[in-house]
Amino acid sequence: MIIIGELINSTRKRIRAMIEQRDTEAIKDIALKQIEAGADYLDVNAGAFVANEPEHMEWLVKTIRSVTEIPLCIDSPSYEALDVGLRLAGPNAIINSISGEPERYEKVLPLVRKYEASVIALSMDERGLLDDEEQILGVIDRLIGRLKDDQVPAERIYIDPLIRPVSTNTIYGKLALRTLREVTRRYPDVRTSCGLSNVSYGLPKRKLLNQTFMITAMASGLKAAILDPLDKQLMANIAAAEALLGEDEFCMRYLEADRSGRFEGLT
Amino acid sequence: MIIIGELINSTRKRIRAMIEQRDTEAIKDIALKQIEAGADYLDVNAGAFVANEPEHMEWLVKTIRSVTEIPLCIDSPSYEALDVGLRLAGPNAIINSISGEPERYEKVLPLVRKYEASVIALSMDERGLLDDEEQILGVIDRLIGRLKDDQVPAERIYIDPLIRPVSTNTIYGKLALRTLREVTRRYPDVRTSCGLSNVSYGLPKRKLLNQTFMITAMASGLKAAILDPLDKQLMANIAAAEALLGEDEFCMRYLEADRSGRFEGLT
Repeated sequence: MIIIGELINSTRKRIRAMIEQRDTEAIKDIALKQIEAGADYLDVNAGAFVANEPEHMEWLVKTIRSVTEIPLCIDSPSYEALDVGLRLAGPNAIINSISGEPERYEKVLPLVRKYEASVIALSMDERGLLDDEEQILGVIDRLIGRLKDDQVPAERIYIDPLIRPVSTNTIYGKLALRTLREVTRRYPDVRTSCGLSNVSYGLPKRKLLNQTFMITAMASGLKAAILDPLDKQLMANIAAAEALLGEDEFCMRYLEADRSGRFEGLT
Repeated sequence: MIIIGELINSTRKRIRAMIEQRDTEAIKDIALKQIEAGADYLDVNAGAFVANEPEHMEWLVKTIRSVTEIPLCIDSPSYEALDVGLRLAGPNAIINSISGEPERYEKVLPLVRKYEASVIALSMDERGLLDDEEQILGVIDRLIGRLKDDQVPAERIYIDPLIRPVSTNTIYGKLALRTLREVTRRYPDVRTSCGLSNVSYGLPKRKLLNQTFMITAMASGLKAAILDPLDKQLMANIAAAEALLGEDEFCMRYLEADRSGRFEGLT
C-alpha cells in the first residue's frame, strides 16, 4: 500500500494557523511524524488561501524540503500553485489532481509532462459526479485512454473513484468498491487511489468507518490512499490486511511492525 | 451478518473447567453476555470430552436453555453428541458440520433432515484440505448439489471455505476470499460461513488479524461467522462494514450501536 500522508492541508484549522504564522517548526514536525508513522508521500495543500496560494505553497514545500526528501503529492485547484509546488518538490511527485473536465485536463496535463509527475485522476467529467457504475467506468476508460495517448505511462496514473458519504446514500460504499475492483481488472498496470474521510461524512465515529472502509478498499484492489498515518489503528489494519491479502511475503512487514511496537495498545 | 458466538467451546481451557465442575452459573453468564453483545446463535461444543461427550453436550444445552431460547449451533464430530444437542436445542438450530467426506456426509445428513436444521458444510472431501481454487470449488459444487438432491433448502446451507493460517502460506487469505466471492456469485441463495481464528494462527496480535480478515471476508460476500462477540473492536468493525457495504439501510443499526455505547473506547 502506498500511503500519502494527508495532514499538511490548509483546510484543517490547526494547519491553516501554522501556515499563516509561518510556523516552520510545527510544519517540519508534522512532516517528520507522518514519515516516522509510515507515509510514503506527503500531501501538501495550501488551497484555503485563495488570494495568495502559490506563495503559501512555496513556503510549505521549502519548509518540508528543509527536513526531508520524501516525495510529495502537490494538491491544488490552482495551476500556478501546482507549478510552484512541483518545481520545488523535485522528482517523483504526484499531482493531486486531474479529471475528465476539459479545462482541468488541459491545464494540468502540461504539468504532468513537464515534471514527469504521477497524477491522481478523478473519476468525473463536465457532468460532475455520477451515480451509475457504467457511466463512471466510461469516464475512467476515456480518461485513461487520453492520458495514455498523451504519453503518460500507466504506472503514473492513479484512478480515484471519488467516494461519497454512505450517510447520503447507502450504495456509495459499494459503488466505489465495485469501481476499484473493475478498474483493477481492466487496467492491471494503472494504480488506484482514494481519500478516506469522505465516506464517513455525517456519521459518528468517523475513524472507525474510515479504518473499516480502508480494508474493504484494499480487498477490492486499492493501491494508494490519502490518509492520516498517525491513526495507529488504521495503520495496523493496513499492515494486517497486507499480510492477509498475500501482499506481505512471509508476513515479514507485519512481524516487523509488531516488533517495533506499532500495534501496542490496540485491543 | 449472522453472528455465531464461539465462546462455549470445551477446547478452551476455562470452559473445559466450567463443564467439568458443572458450573451452571458460569455457562449461563457466558451465554447471556454473548447475546447481549449481539450474537444471533451460540455455538455449543463439548468435543474435548471424547469419552462422554453426549452427556456433557446434554448438560450444556440444558444449562443454556434454562436462560435463553436463542438458536444454537451444535458443534461436534460425534453423531451421538449432535443428536442429543439438536433434540434439546429445539427449532432453527445449525449443525456444525457436514463435509464431502462420505462417512461424515452419510452420518450427518439424517440429522439435518430429522431436525430440519441448517448445516455448515466444510469445503473438503475424502482428499482432505485442498490448495487449488478450482478443486475447492469443485468440492463445493458437488456438496451443494448433493445437499439439494437430498432436499436441504439452499438457505439452510452455510458453505465454510476452511480458512488456513497465512503464516503457513501467504496465499491462504486470498484463496478463502476468492472462494467466498465465487460461491456467492454461483449460489446467491446459499449462505457462507467461516471461523475467524484459524487465519491468524502462529502470528502476533491475532485479534487484529481476525478483525481485519472479518472485514475482507464481508467485502467478499460472507454471510455468517463463528467469532467472539465480546471482542468490541471486531463487533464495531462489523457494524461499520455493514453500513459501508450497503447492508444497513440509512445506517440505522450503525447509529443505534453508537447511541447504545458499543463504540466507546475505540480509537
